[in-house]
Amino acid sequence: MSKNLLREDHLFKQVYDYVLTHIERHEWKEHEKLPSVRKLAEEMNVHRLTVLKAYQLLKKHKKVYVKDKSGYFVQPDLAGEHIENEDHPIINAYAQKNHLSEIHQASVSYDFSHALIDPNLLPNQYLSHYVKKVFDLYPKVLATYSTVQGDVELRETLASYFISQYKSQVHADDLLLTSGSQQAIHMIAQAFIKPRDTVLFERPSYSSAIDVFKNQGAKIKTVDIHPDGYDLLQIEDLMKTYKPRLFYLNPTFHNPTGYTVPAHQRKRLVELAEQYRCLLIEDDAYHDIYFDQTPPPPIYTYDASGTVIYIRSFCKYISPGLRIGAVLCQSALMKTLITVKSLVDNGSPLLNQKIFLHYFSSLRLQEHLKKIRIALQIRKEIMEKELAAANWNWVSPKGGLNLWVKLPEDISTEKLLMKSLDHSISFVPGQVCDPLKESSSMIRLSYSYANEKQLSIGLEKFIHLAKSM
Amino acid sequence: MSKNLLREDHLFKQVYDYVLTHIERHEWKEHEKLPSVRKLAEEMNVHRLTVLKAYQLLKKHKKVYVKDKSGYFVQPDLAGEHIENEDHPIINAYAQKNHLSEIHQASVSYDFSHALIDPNLLPNQYLSHYVKKVFDLYPKVLATYSTVQGDVELRETLASYFISQYKSQVHADDLLLTSGSQQAIHMIAQAFIKPRDTVLFERPSYSSAIDVFKNQGAKIKTVDIHPDGYDLLQIEDLMKTYKPRLFYLNPTFHNPTGYTVPAHQRKRLVELAEQYRCLLIEDDAYHDIYFDQTPPPPIYTYDASGTVIYIRSFCKYISPGLRIGAVLCQSALMKTLITVKSLVDNGSPLLNQKIFLHYFSSLRLQEHLKKIRIALQIRKEIMEKELAAANWNWVSPKGGLNLWVKLPEDISTEKLLMKSLDHSISFVPGQVCDPLKESSSMIRLSYSYANEKQLSIGLEKFIHLAKSM
Repeated sequence: MSKNLLREDHLFKQVYDYVLTHIERHEWKEHEKLPSVRKLAEEMNVHRLTVLKAYQLLKKHKKVYVKDKSGYFVQPDLAGEHIENEDHPIINAYAQKNHLSEIHQASVSYDFSHALIDPNLLPNQYLSHYVKKVFDLYPKVLATYSTVQGDVELRETLASYFISQYKSQVHADDLLLTSGSQQAIHMIAQAFIKPRDTVLFERPSYSSAIDVFKNQGAKIKTVDIHPDGYDLLQIEDLMKTYKPRLFYLNPTFHNPTGYTVPAHQRKRLVELAEQYRCLLIEDDAYHDIYFDQTPPPPIYTYDASGTVIYIRSFCKYISPGLRIGAVLCQSALMKTLITVKSLVDNGSPLLNQKIFLHYFSSLRLQEHLKKIRIALQIRKEIMEKELAAANWNWVSPKGGLNLWVKLPEDISTEKLLMKSLDHSISFVPGQVCDPLKESSSMIRLSYSYANEKQLSIGLEKFIHLAKSM
Repeated sequence: MSKNLLREDHLFKQVYDYVLTHIERHEWKEHEKLPSVRKLAEEMNVHRLTVLKAYQLLKKHKKVYVKDKSGYFVQPDLAGEHIENEDHPIINAYAQKNHLSEIHQASVSYDFSHALIDPNLLPNQYLSHYVKKVFDLYPKVLATYSTVQGDVELRETLASYFISQYKSQVHADDLLLTSGSQQAIHMIAQAFIKPRDTVLFERPSYSSAIDVFKNQGAKIKTVDIHPDGYDLLQIEDLMKTYKPRLFYLNPTFHNPTGYTVPAHQRKRLVELAEQYRCLLIEDDAYHDIYFDQTPPPPIYTYDASGTVIYIRSFCKYISPGLRIGAVLCQSALMKTLITVKSLVDNGSPLLNQKIFLHYFSSLRLQEHLKKIRIALQIRKEIMEKELAAANWNWVSPKGGLNLWVKLPEDISTEKLLMKSLDHSISFVPGQVCDPLKESSSMIRLSYSYANEKQLSIGLEKFIHLAKSM
């Protein structure tokens, strides 16, 4: 290859990457017009043909499209769309996205993007005692597979817990153990959704769940969530019009807003779901993290007909590293989920289930939860104090790990994220939590991962950064 | 409800279940005619209307179909087909099947169906030492998430292992850690296959992999595998005609046959795959279980262009309970797989990776493997001695965990399975391993799970049973 050709190749790649980066960072929005070939060629000091070639390759890769010969436009992000990369014939994967995971790849000093609990707040010492106990009790635990559905001792223990908490009839056979609630969400999508099925989501919602269902090819309709819950007429209208197969919801200390759906709405929602044959997927990730009073009982406790699949994440505030979640549902749905579990990984590791079992059955659990609620409430209050000084707006949540904060309208949250990451601060822009991916002035700030000092220093820096924009 | 109605309901359910069981056990084959309504009503001593009602519901559930008014016929098993259960509106899952998992649900005294290693052969004692070491080294291991791609220390260790074994260039970034190889297979299907894509499979093949790809909606074409490998002209012809997106293969001590594809075919296969743009998914589950000499190097070592995704299951003969598998591939494919991993479970448990790391890095591993090869060879020979006495046919494998045995033509392997399970003996009928699900006189007998005594007693019983049919 001649030197000239090499240089041209290099410039071509530069233009291609420049445009792609703008699109992928959503700095250039869906259906927005790209700069004209002439303009970009001038700006980047390259030949017009180089820009044209880059635009054409981007078109082939379905990143841009052409309209009425009036120019190139940003192609909307088509989940599940087949990308034939003709230049790299082997790399013809189907598009898969996980927006949250991309933000989390950055390692920062002031981490307000992870809705995880600071490892220093977790009962590490005690857990390592339980590990030794597990090996004494089950010397061949590492040589043994768990059943696909999960260890029966742990399922029985969790069933007793549900019965004692909610007086509802729960049997060990109604429970399936998963590798964290992420796996539960993915398995449900895999079992019940095919491309073009309609799915309801709260708006905003948990970003990784949105991505799971979008990658599965679901069409998404949204239900607004407010500080006092849903507009049930809106839900009925959506169920009637679109006949969604399921509604993924997070009604208790909702992620990202922190809102909680009141008991009377829970009851009515189950009736609607039954009437319109829509499964309710209740993701109860933050149930045990309340500050003043316990939340209303889960929606599944109102369900007599098997309309609800309940996902409970117990491990998050005990030992996230164990990766244990539980799914509770009626037997016909359970049968399908067990088969899916056998296909996706053939059962979670037994060791982890046994460690969790012994900690969960101990008296330490309730003590630990009491402590962690206090610690998190303190962290929340530190965050709120800093935000109050900045005059930003949010609804103070009664539990959970996040604040959902409204920034002044003139701040671009995407630009702020780029700038913040440069200053070793992370947060989640509201757009990532929006099933419709519209830009907004909302952001999610998690107060659970950073410690008290990091919270006050980091937030001060962060507010300063935002105000300087 | 009156007593009569209750009784009718009960009889109806009986007829429905009776027919469904016959279909699901493949005792009534695809496209086989069902007994006439009159005949079954007489046989079961119920009213004809009850049978008709049951047949109609089975039709609605797509278990049977009607042809030219000449009667009801068994509907072929349509993977991925949408089943609208109008009587149970909520239970409208997409069909999901795992044939092997269904056989494994039975707990038996003489287990020849699990291709797993007897827990008594595994290094349980040593592993529990490593667990304690892990907690001393990483006191917060249970409070910490692994990265999505997997612990970097373990990936580096595995990369060094590949370099030392095969002199090929492998970097930690080329490796992804999964929850067993089952998860790796599922993730690859999820990333690269959409309904109606064509996939090549060896015939026979690993049943759970067949089910994963069928449930993903793939159309399957088969490549025969022989004691001396493939017919490469057949493969070229299939690749040319059907343009498959990938070929799932298990070329070393192949499951279920035990055959090994020779080195010169491996090289040529990579050339073909590159030419026809077909990914090779090399599942190397039994690589370390050889009896006399090491097998040829994996197919991925012949690959210069990134056509191979290599799945290595290390854990199977060390600690299956840890659930650790590794995927090796080029960076563009890796990027997609990491996103899929973030969606399916957001990373495997760190504790398990650290325990495995410390055992894998120790000198004990090679000692353990030497011992386990000898123990398994002894078990294989016990099984072969019993089978030789029965005059059955098989090709003695040079590694792996299974014998692929031909029974006399007049024995129905499906009926033999039912009878064997009644006598607490399990095996895998050849049909389960056939991507085309045709019935055959082949069966898979695993010699790795039962101990020496169980092998000789169980096989004697089993042969007696078969001969009595």
